[in-house]
Amino acid sequence: MSPLDSHASRARRLTDLRAAMAQAQVDAVIVPSADPHLSEYLPGHWQGREWLSGFTGSVGTLVVTPDFAGVWTDGRYTTQAETELAGTEIALMKIPGAASVLHIDWLAANLQPGQTVAVDARVLGLATARLLADALKARGINLMTEIDLLDAVWLERPALPAAPVFEHAAPHATAARNARLLDTRTAMAKAGADAHFISTLDDIAWLFNLRGADVNFNPVFLAHALIDAERATLFVGANKVSDALRAILLADGVHLAPYLDAAASLQALAPGSTVLLDPRRVTAGMRAAVAEGVRVVEAINPSTFAKSRKSAAEAAHVRAAMEQDGAALCAFFADLEATLNDAARAPLDEVEIDRRITAARASRPGFVSASFGTIAGFNANGAIMHYRAAEGTCATIAGDGLLLIDSGGQYLGGTTDITRVIPVGTPSAEQRRDFTLVLKGLIALSHTQFPRGTRSPLLDAIARAPIWAGGVDYGHGTGHGVGYFLNVHEGPQSISPTTMPEPHTAMEPGMITSIEPGIYKPGRHGIRIENLVYNVLADVTEFGEFLQFETLTLCPIDTRVIDPALFDQREIDWLNDYHATVRARLSPLVTGAARDWLLLRTEAI
Amino acid sequence: MSPLDSHASRARRLTDLRAAMAQAQVDAVIVPSADPHLSEYLPGHWQGREWLSGFTGSVGTLVVTPDFAGVWTDGRYTTQAETELAGTEIALMKIPGAASVLHIDWLAANLQPGQTVAVDARVLGLATARLLADALKARGINLMTEIDLLDAVWLERPALPAAPVFEHAAPHATAARNARLLDTRTAMAKAGADAHFISTLDDIAWLFNLRGADVNFNPVFLAHALIDAERATLFVGANKVSDALRAILLADGVHLAPYLDAAASLQALAPGSTVLLDPRRVTAGMRAAVAEGVRVVEAINPSTFAKSRKSAAEAAHVRAAMEQDGAALCAFFADLEATLNDAARAPLDEVEIDRRITAARASRPGFVSASFGTIAGFNANGAIMHYRAAEGTCATIAGDGLLLIDSGGQYLGGTTDITRVIPVGTPSAEQRRDFTLVLKGLIALSHTQFPRGTRSPLLDAIARAPIWAGGVDYGHGTGHGVGYFLNVHEGPQSISPTTMPEPHTAMEPGMITSIEPGIYKPGRHGIRIENLVYNVLADVTEFGEFLQFETLTLCPIDTRVIDPALFDQREIDWLNDYHATVRARLSPLVTGAARDWLLLRTEAI
Repeated sequence: MSPLDSHASRARRLTDLRAAMAQAQVDAVIVPSADPHLSEYLPGHWQGREWLSGFTGSVGTLVVTPDFAGVWTDGRYTTQAETELAGTEIALMKIPGAASVLHIDWLAANLQPGQTVAVDARVLGLATARLLADALKARGINLMTEIDLLDAVWLERPALPAAPVFEHAAPHATAARNARLLDTRTAMAKAGADAHFISTLDDIAWLFNLRGADVNFNPVFLAHALIDAERATLFVGANKVSDALRAILLADGVHLAPYLDAAASLQALAPGSTVLLDPRRVTAGMRAAVAEGVRVVEAINPSTFAKSRKSAAEAAHVRAAMEQDGAALCAFFADLEATLNDAARAPLDEVEIDRRITAARASRPGFVSASFGTIAGFNANGAIMHYRAAEGTCATIAGDGLLLIDSGGQYLGGTTDITRVIPVGTPSAEQRRDFTLVLKGLIALSHTQFPRGTRSPLLDAIARAPIWAGGVDYGHGTGHGVGYFLNVHEGPQSISPTTMPEPHTAMEPGMITSIEPGIYKPGRHGIRIENLVYNVLADVTEFGEFLQFETLTLCPIDTRVIDPALFDQREIDWLNDYHATVRARLSPLVTGAARDWLLLRTEAI
Repeated sequence: MSPLDSHASRARRLTDLRAAMAQAQVDAVIVPSADPHLSEYLPGHWQGREWLSGFTGSVGTLVVTPDFAGVWTDGRYTTQAETELAGTEIALMKIPGAASVLHIDWLAANLQPGQTVAVDARVLGLATARLLADALKARGINLMTEIDLLDAVWLERPALPAAPVFEHAAPHATAARNARLLDTRTAMAKAGADAHFISTLDDIAWLFNLRGADVNFNPVFLAHALIDAERATLFVGANKVSDALRAILLADGVHLAPYLDAAASLQALAPGSTVLLDPRRVTAGMRAAVAEGVRVVEAINPSTFAKSRKSAAEAAHVRAAMEQDGAALCAFFADLEATLNDAARAPLDEVEIDRRITAARASRPGFVSASFGTIAGFNANGAIMHYRAAEGTCATIAGDGLLLIDSGGQYLGGTTDITRVIPVGTPSAEQRRDFTLVLKGLIALSHTQFPRGTRSPLLDAIARAPIWAGGVDYGHGTGHGVGYFLNVHEGPQSISPTTMPEPHTAMEPGMITSIEPGIYKPGRHGIRIENLVYNVLADVTEFGEFLQFETLTLCPIDTRVIDPALFDQREIDWLNDYHATVRARLSPLVTGAARDWLLLRTEAI
C-alpha cells in the first residue's frame, strides 16, 4: 500500500461512499472482489474493495452501511486481514470454509424491511445474485443492482488494461481454433442452444487460442464472447488486436466488436432463440441484458469441461515445461542452500527469494511469467497461508527452522505450481514430524487409483487421513485444477471438503490437479508440499475405467526433514521412485552446482 | 407374492387405476413408496406401489400414465426389479445412486403443458414435493395433491396397524421423557419456535421413551406429535395405549389425541405463532395443513440430532447387547459350520439360515426382534445387494464358494447389524482376493482418526481406496447411522458418496454408524463385511477435538478367506487385536461347540 493509502485516506473514502449512498437513498452497499468476468485476479479498475478497505487479499467482500463497515473473508486470509484492517473502523468478519456468502445472512439480519441494498450487477455473479435476491426478498429488503457507487467517489480509478492480445500458436496450441469452435457448437446443439455467451477470461483464451497480459499471472485479456451457429464475436478493447491477428481470426469466422458492446449483443438476440449461459460464470448484469423472448439454458460452459481435459499432445508439452521448471528450481535451490550456508552472503530475506526464483525460471525456454505471486515464508510466516513477503517488512532467513516456498511459472507449454519446504539450520523434532505427516498425505493421495467419474471432493480425505492421525488438520482444500498456459486455478474439479461433490466435479482423464496438503501452526511454522498430477487411465475392469495420477512436477522433496520412524515401506518406495524419476529427467538439463544439488537431493533413503 | 398377485391381476389393477385417472381428469399418477411418516418400512396400508406393480423392494417410485407405467429404483434393486417386473408392461427405470428424483425429470419431459399429475400429498415428503412442483410448474404442467387414487381401486386395502405401544423404561432408557422434552423445548426456543410438529416415527419413539410394533423390524408405532411450551400431544390410534401408560404419559404433560387429528392440530395453531418443521421429515400434506398466519421455521428435527448421539449409559447397554448378539452368532456359526461339514445334515438352504440365526438371537436376554430381514446369499445370490431368500426358490448351500450373511437384532439395550462372509468348501483365488480387499477397506476406515465435525460423506473414500486399488468398486454407501433399540437406518450422518456433505452430516461424539464396504460380482459372488462403530473422543490438540471409532460389533471375521500377501503389518495387528477383544468379551458367554468355534475363529494370524 502506498503512503497515500493511510488510515485517514481510507476513512475519507468511506465517508465519501456514505455520502453517495445517502444521495442514492441506499442503506447498504456490497463491494465484492469481482470484475465483469468473475476473475480471481482483478485489473486495478475493479479493485474497489481493496481501494476502500485496504485489505489486499484476493477473496473478500466489503459491506458498508451508515454505521458499519466490514470485510468478510475466510481462514486463509485471517492473519493478513487483521493486520491490514487494524486501526480502521472496518470489522473483520471471519467465514468458515471458502465460497461462503455469510455477508448475505448479515444483511438479511441487520437491515430493516423497506431498506435498500446496492450492488453493481456488472460485477456480481448470477448464482450469488440469486442467493442475495432471495435472502433480501424474504425479509422485504430492496435490492438495487443498476448502480456503481464507486464511480462517484473513486476519482483516480484506474483505466481498463490495454495489453496486446497474442496468438497461442502451434505447436503449443494443440488444437485449431476451428476445431474448438466446432466442438463448442456441437455442445450448444446438444443443449438445444442457438447461441452461447461467455465472460470468463480463461474460457475465452482457451477457445480462441489467444492469450494476453491484462492481469498479473493469468495470461488472459479482457473480453466477452458470443458464439452462434455461423459466427463468433469477440468483444475486446480497440487496438488490443493487431491487424494481422484480426485477419487470422476473421479467416476462422471470428469477428471483433467493442468490449463494451457485449451486453447490447445479448439485447439483440432474436426472440425465440435460445442462449446457453453458465450461471456461475456470467454476471447478473449480463443475464439481465438478455432480450425478452429469448430462452436461456443454464449449464456449465462447454469450454470449462473441454479445457480441463488436457490432450496427450498438451501433456507432452507440460512434461517438457516441468523439466524446464525443475531445472530452474535445481539452480535456484543449489544457490539458495549455498547462500544460507555462507555467512558472507547470508542473511537472505523472503523478497530476495521471490526475485531469485523468478530469475531462475526466466532463463528457461518458453517461460512467460510467474503463475502467481511467490509465497516464501520462514517459520511463523510459513504458517500464514497466503503470505506475500513485502520489501522492508519481511523476515530474513536466519536461525533454525523451515522455509516454505510456493511458486510457479507460465510457460508456452504449460503452467506450473509447486511448493517445497527446506530446512534451515536444525529443524525441531515437531517440525520434522509435521513435515513427514504432510509428505505421507501427499504420497497417500498420489498413489490412489479411483474410478473414472469419482467426484473430486471425495478424494480429499485420503490425503488428510495421515495428517488427522497426528491430531492435525489444514484449513484449505487439497487440490485445484490447473490450466494449460492459463490460470493456475481452474475447475471444474476441486479436491476440497468445502466443494459439494456434484456431478460437474467428476474426475476425468487428462485433468491436471494439484495435491498440496499442509500443516500450519500459527507463530511457529507452516508446511505444504505440492505437486501437480495428471489423470491417466490405469485399468479397465468389469467395474469400468480406473484412473491414477501421473506426477508431473519434477523437483526433489527434502529428505533431510523426514522422520523415517513415521514412514512405511510403501511410502519409502514411492519417494525413492519419485526421486529416481526426477534425477533421470532433470540431470540432462542441469550442470555444475545445480547438478550436484540434484544428485545429492535425489539420493534414495 | 400370493398366487392372486398374478400378472393378470396386476394388469387389472393398472386398468382400474387408469379408469380412476380418467374420471379424475389426471394424466399421470405418482405412487411413491412412502407413508405419512416417510418411513423406510411401510405398513401394508401404504404399500400401494407394491400392490400395483408387484415390485417388493423398499425403495422405488411408480409412475402411471394412460400409455406408460414404470418403476424408478436404484442399483441395489435392479436385479430384483428385473425379476419381479418381468412379463408385465411396467418398465424398470434405473437411477444411478440413491435418493434420486429422476421420475420428476421424466414427467417434466413427457407430459404436455396443461396436463395434470396427481400424487397424494399425505405420503409425499415436503422437500420432494417442492422439487416436483418446481419442475412441473416450469413446464406448465398442473399438480394435483389432494387426491388418493388408490382408494378408489384398492378395495381390499389393509387397515392401519394396531399393535400396542409400550414404554421403553429404565435402565435401558437412559434419560427421562421429561428431560428429553425439556431439551426439545430449549432447541425450539433457540430456533424461535413456539411449537414443533414431528411425523417421523423414530423421532417420536425416542422422544417419548415409547416403542411399538406397527411395522416389521423397526420398533415404532404410528403417531404424529405436537409440542409446545406447556404440553405435548401424541396423535396415536385409539386403544394402542393402555390406561396405565396413558396415566404415566399424562404425568409428564403428554396428552393423547386421535391419530387422524394431527393435521387439524396444525390448522388450529394460533395466528402469529411459529412452528418448527423438518422439510425432509414431514409430508407436503402436513405442511399445507399449517394455518394461515403461522410462521414456519424449517430445520432438522432437534430429536434427530439428539438421538444420534448415544450417551455413555446407552453405549454401555449397546456393548452388553453386542456381547449377547456375538454370543448368539457364535452358537449359530458353530452349528452352521457343523451342518455344512456333515453330509447327513447338509444341504442347507438360505431360508433355513434366516430361521436359525433368528432363533439363536431369540434365546438371548433382551432380544425383541430381528432389526431387518436377514440377507443370506450364497455365491451369485450374495451379489444381489438386497437379496431376500424365499421359500421354495432359494439356493441350497452346496459346492465351493462364499456365503454372505447380513443380519441384526433389536434388543432393549440397542440395535445390531452385522455382515460376515464364510467360506464353503474351497473358495476361489478371486474370492479370497476380493474378501481381503473388502477387509482392508473395513480396517482402513476403522482405524481412521478425524476431526470432530468432519462431514461423514467425506470419510467414504477411505474405506473405498483399498478396493479401488484392486480395480473394484461397490454401488452403495459405506455406512449408515444406527438407532438405539430403534431403526437400523437413521441419520443425520451418512458415510456415502451420494450424500451431499452438508453441515448436518457432521460426525459428533456418541454416534453409532456402520462400516460395510463390499464387492459384488453379478452371477459369481458378493462380499460385504460390516461392523458397527461408536464415535469416541481420541485426542484434543491445538486443532480441536479428534474422534476415533470404537468397534462395537463382536464376532470373528473368517481368517481362512484372507490372502495374507495383500495384508500389511498394520492390518494384521488390527485384526489380531480385534479378535483378542472378541475372544475376551464373548468367551464368558458361550459354552461347548460355540466356545470351541469362538476360540478357533479368533486365533491370531
